[in-house]
Amino acid sequence: MNLPPINQSGKGSNPGDALLAESFSQKVQSRWDRSLFLCVGLDGSADKLPSFLASQAGEDGLFEFNRQLIEATAEFTAVYKPNIAFYEQSGPPGLVALKRTCDWLKSRYPEIPILLDAKRGDLANTNESYAAAFFNYYKVDAVTVQPYMGAGVLAPFLDRPEKSVFVLCHTSNPDSAQIQGLTVAATGDYPAEPLYHRVARLASSSEWNYNGNIGLVAGATFPAELREIRELAPHLPFLIPGIGAQGGDINQVLEYGLDERGAGVLINASRSIIYASKGEDFAEAAAREAANLARAMREGQERVMAARR
Amino acid sequence: MNLPPINQSGKGSNPGDALLAESFSQKVQSRWDRSLFLCVGLDGSADKLPSFLASQAGEDGLFEFNRQLIEATAEFTAVYKPNIAFYEQSGPPGLVALKRTCDWLKSRYPEIPILLDAKRGDLANTNESYAAAFFNYYKVDAVTVQPYMGAGVLAPFLDRPEKSVFVLCHTSNPDSAQIQGLTVAATGDYPAEPLYHRVARLASSSEWNYNGNIGLVAGATFPAELREIRELAPHLPFLIPGIGAQGGDINQVLEYGLDERGAGVLINASRSIIYASKGEDFAEAAAREAANLARAMREGQERVMAARR
Repeated sequence: MNLPPINQSGKGSNPGDALLAESFSQKVQSRWDRSLFLCVGLDGSADKLPSFLASQAGEDGLFEFNRQLIEATAEFTAVYKPNIAFYEQSGPPGLVALKRTCDWLKSRYPEIPILLDAKRGDLANTNESYAAAFFNYYKVDAVTVQPYMGAGVLAPFLDRPEKSVFVLCHTSNPDSAQIQGLTVAATGDYPAEPLYHRVARLASSSEWNYNGNIGLVAGATFPAELREIRELAPHLPFLIPGIGAQGGDINQVLEYGLDERGAGVLINASRSIIYASKGEDFAEAAAREAANLARAMREGQERVMAARR
Repeated sequence: MNLPPINQSGKGSNPGDALLAESFSQKVQSRWDRSLFLCVGLDGSADKLPSFLASQAGEDGLFEFNRQLIEATAEFTAVYKPNIAFYEQSGPPGLVALKRTCDWLKSRYPEIPILLDAKRGDLANTNESYAAAFFNYYKVDAVTVQPYMGAGVLAPFLDRPEKSVFVLCHTSNPDSAQIQGLTVAATGDYPAEPLYHRVARLASSSEWNYNGNIGLVAGATFPAELREIRELAPHLPFLIPGIGAQGGDINQVLEYGLDERGAGVLINASRSIIYASKGEDFAEAAAREAANLARAMREGQERVMAARR
């Protein structure tokens, strides 16, 4: 864990800035300013905890697992991303653990934003309830959503300029092209192109991104597609899953995903960090893995930006 | 509430059959055999309950609201459809109310299936957790899902032949065509066609529907599109939202949505039933509304099938 000092980019902000920052965008910018790109997926589930924690009651064990993981990885982490599915898995107690994790994280590390991976999408009237759950109850800073129903229904998420909304564009699963890769016909100003291109263009448009708070989900397992999406959406932040357990390559992700400022990417790893060890040393093992990934990302970013100059 | 006796179609099953039926498909078939097509959306939220119930603790009030609604509407109802967003809205207590509602409904009316409207979609590894939550914890009989990530990730849902999986095809929101109506190019055996056509074809294919447990979501607010989807997917069950508060027409839905047997549709109404009155007579008002809708559906179905002969 002996990392060289962070914030070598010279773009650093004052130490107090992060505490004053309120929006997801501002908080993430402060992390990027410190050359932090790692998104840690808090995807523990009660049935997969290290055995010495699993003996605690479900919600207590899961919260304690997260608390120790966060303490161990915070200095390497740009954003934490719990996927709500793992907390929903066993009903309300898991969601109590999610709530405790979010509350504790916000008080202990207010400068690190929370992106809730929920991939929701419903009618506007219903999305109001999801937005209330995520932004008012769990108080997260950003969420992931589905594009299939169009942008109108997403208003309850998009209408909050201080929150960010990551729209699924090209996901990391092997057969994601089945729908996302279909060629859609030209319409209006848009050319004939794959559906994920159209989603990237729409998400960048003033019709969808009227509050400037949209990001895109683009899987690391499809580097060529990631490059195309960056060309189509040069200024949007990307959430990039698929390194680690899924096999995506960090250097390619940085080469193709970084924006012109050398930022704009949140590269997620979940299982490779949180389950780096299943023993009592799980937090230490997670810290080592997170440190290695964070260093690889910082060094990769420097290489990419040097090569671009 | 003086309805003519049900089960006039002559296709009725023995009274005991519904209790023996285990799969969603079998349970729903028994409801259709009794000319029941109404899907009641249990979309109450703790902040919109009748005031005399709202004074109870959140989860108790919400459960009691549902319990009285179900007792009042069961005889008119083919399937109950809670949308989980309204229970998630205020965190774990709302989900306790959902769990209590599902448990009570299954013990009181085991013959009426529960379709959980969740519109989920994530990686297969993550969908495993959602499937565990919905099928093992809440023990519902069917769910709604998103098509954007393709069929592979849906395996945790589709692999359970006794459960049904309703895939979003053409939703009821006014601007649903923004993505769903894009024309996709011809590929393989499929012609150039709107995306929602392609979703209907894929969902009907043996690649997606290998367990014969897929249904489609097709909004009542787009009758022409509903008709097209029925032509493309003649044998799939349809969940049809959008009558009532959203303004879709029951007779058109039946004319275009009924399959060749005069069944295959679950027509949802939520707010128009559950909030028919905000007073102490809410359950009575809900029963009246559900009875009227159920009668309109049964009579409409008879007219449509008579006209087809």
